[in-house]
Amino acid sequence: MDQRELLARAAHLDAGDALAPLREAFHMPEGMVYLDGNSLGLMPKAVPARLQAVAHQEWSEGLIRSWSNAGWFDLPMAVGDRIAPVIGAGPGEVAVGDSTSVNLFKCLAAALHLRPGRTVILAEANNFPTDIYMAQGLAALVPGVRIEFLEEGQTVAQRVHDQVAVVLLSHVDYRTAVVRDMERINREARAGGALVLWDLSHTAGAVHCDLRGSGSDLAVGCTYKYLNGGPGAPAYCWIRAELMEQVRQPLAGWMGHAAPFGFPRDYAPAPGARRMVCGTPQVLSLSALDEALKIWGGVDLAALFAKSRVMTDFFIEAVEALCAGHGLQLRVPRDAAARGSHVSFDLPQGFEVMQALAARGVIGDFRAPATMRFGFAPMYLRFADVARAAVLLRDIVDTREWDQPRFRVRGKVT
Amino acid sequence: MDQRELLARAAHLDAGDALAPLREAFHMPEGMVYLDGNSLGLMPKAVPARLQAVAHQEWSEGLIRSWSNAGWFDLPMAVGDRIAPVIGAGPGEVAVGDSTSVNLFKCLAAALHLRPGRTVILAEANNFPTDIYMAQGLAALVPGVRIEFLEEGQTVAQRVHDQVAVVLLSHVDYRTAVVRDMERINREARAGGALVLWDLSHTAGAVHCDLRGSGSDLAVGCTYKYLNGGPGAPAYCWIRAELMEQVRQPLAGWMGHAAPFGFPRDYAPAPGARRMVCGTPQVLSLSALDEALKIWGGVDLAALFAKSRVMTDFFIEAVEALCAGHGLQLRVPRDAAARGSHVSFDLPQGFEVMQALAARGVIGDFRAPATMRFGFAPMYLRFADVARAAVLLRDIVDTREWDQPRFRVRGKVT
Repeated sequence: MDQRELLARAAHLDAGDALAPLREAFHMPEGMVYLDGNSLGLMPKAVPARLQAVAHQEWSEGLIRSWSNAGWFDLPMAVGDRIAPVIGAGPGEVAVGDSTSVNLFKCLAAALHLRPGRTVILAEANNFPTDIYMAQGLAALVPGVRIEFLEEGQTVAQRVHDQVAVVLLSHVDYRTAVVRDMERINREARAGGALVLWDLSHTAGAVHCDLRGSGSDLAVGCTYKYLNGGPGAPAYCWIRAELMEQVRQPLAGWMGHAAPFGFPRDYAPAPGARRMVCGTPQVLSLSALDEALKIWGGVDLAALFAKSRVMTDFFIEAVEALCAGHGLQLRVPRDAAARGSHVSFDLPQGFEVMQALAARGVIGDFRAPATMRFGFAPMYLRFADVARAAVLLRDIVDTREWDQPRFRVRGKVT
Repeated sequence: MDQRELLARAAHLDAGDALAPLREAFHMPEGMVYLDGNSLGLMPKAVPARLQAVAHQEWSEGLIRSWSNAGWFDLPMAVGDRIAPVIGAGPGEVAVGDSTSVNLFKCLAAALHLRPGRTVILAEANNFPTDIYMAQGLAALVPGVRIEFLEEGQTVAQRVHDQVAVVLLSHVDYRTAVVRDMERINREARAGGALVLWDLSHTAGAVHCDLRGSGSDLAVGCTYKYLNGGPGAPAYCWIRAELMEQVRQPLAGWMGHAAPFGFPRDYAPAPGARRMVCGTPQVLSLSALDEALKIWGGVDLAALFAKSRVMTDFFIEAVEALCAGHGLQLRVPRDAAARGSHVSFDLPQGFEVMQALAARGVIGDFRAPATMRFGFAPMYLRFADVARAAVLLRDIVDTREWDQPRFRVRGKVT
């Protein structure tokens, strides 16, 4: 495939993309090809007006009355109901607030409570660090609780045993994009008497996920990647409805209480998933997320997830054709069905290449030591963008454009 | 004191108020007397423009690069540095993020870690409920940890013993406005080998507080009351610098890690107070708070706290003079030095009276069973507002204006 052929195919794919109009809901910076929606999604155009309404009407004029009149109190569950269909959860089952890290803690502790006598968290060794850190924080706090690591290549069936309370895994690996088989892993864990806590941060909004249909127990996820909720947007958690009435979680704040304004001395959990809410909801961040999620109403999710697979296939094929001979190593599965919505290539000069790409308007990210990571948000990317990124990457490696001192400056958060 | 005299005194006090120009920084709804700044502060006029800049420039255009270029990563500590002088903390000592509830959990667990072998949390029985609930959540999670209640009228000296790790108290009582003697209580706790965790939610921004000078150990607080950070604005925590390097807290998220982008498998706390940060900061809410706190630069805090005392004295005197014979019972100390920045009166018809006042534009709040609560934010209230509230309250109890079915509707969040 040469460049001309590539661009023609991109044009053809874009012309046939029924989801293309969704791009209009987002602000894309002029001239940019944004392949980092797996870190921070684009801003939906409707968000600034919502923030102004919250500030000027709800806060400024409505003041304290807005807790009831503007629905602030209900936001954690109302926003959860917008996320639910995207991850295969039911209405009233998703609670939104706090960070992914804090929700991991709540859910790990809830899982230990649901499996009394069991004290082991079986944690994926190469999970995103905060998942492991939160498990370590819990283990350091509660005597007897300990972590065993599920190493690369091991199965849950091999490692689960009668002391494992919960298995902690990401559904889509943040480096390798490997998609785990939720149903099989849930079954393997259940056979060993353990629960599974899924981190859906790299799943929700880009990859098929059916929490209820796959027999899942617990899940958490962030909303600032493919859900476009904004920097540090509130996270969510989900627990299977059948378990909920037995759930106790230690971050037992007043906003998850059965009678938050009755002010009784003792904690009593609210019915259902509301008990996963802790302190006062961060209304500004939650409102922006609420607005961002409105885009999802009516979206054909199957078509969206299919677009992600076609798009990542297309990028892999384009890069391998155009950059052949430059030593790029594909770090993600070739089989689109086993792959999330990002593509990683390893290259010793990966850091410099990503900087050079950024200078040309193609934004991806880099994970040490040598991984170039490109995220493909199917909601707003065009195949023409993907082709352009591949062509520029080819230009940069062909001409050694990356080999400049200004592209070697490290230490920035990317 | 009759009404004419009251209004003349208010005019005189307003004329001599050097802080009066600060009111201009806030949006006050037309015709409203807002006496609920102790629940949710007014909106600073500069906040909407900041939110627009964050949305349109930092998020929308800067995207992922804003974590370094716009200072998002540093916000938790930068915002903390704005709060520090208001509560008598030093630079670099205050970490901002999460809710007050979550910060209570972090600090209670940190205190238990700092006092190995001790397992009791001595908790003020009438504290704001979420303070107690978070302690209960921790006690339910960690075997051996238990709560003893410090009942009304008991001193810390009487109740501290060699199993008490931490005493949990509010500096200003959310109902009675009683201000506790920080220095004495810190001394009593220390004599018993215990730490004290102060909740400053009803203190910060209205009442003098010198964390370092009073020999305090730990503190948390919210920012949506007198600090005007917006609905559900992020909370803060503080730990004495001399203790910090020994501090371990269980909500050990990646943003409090020593090397958050090195992605090592094991958690290692960042130096200093940054280790109290957990997950990804909620940038929208944090930015609004950051903007709101800019107002505090250069404010004469001693004059501000003095204004709070004169103002609450003035309201008590006015209400007791104008409403004499109607059975209002003062629930707060008469001595302004022992009182926070709100005034509570009990009245059997308190709920209906507060509704009738709201219908006349005076917003306060109500705490069951019979407490009418009026908050006085010295930063933006005028003595004329205070006089007007007292006059309208008099009118309502004199004419039994409160005795209407529409004022009896309960169940709303106020």
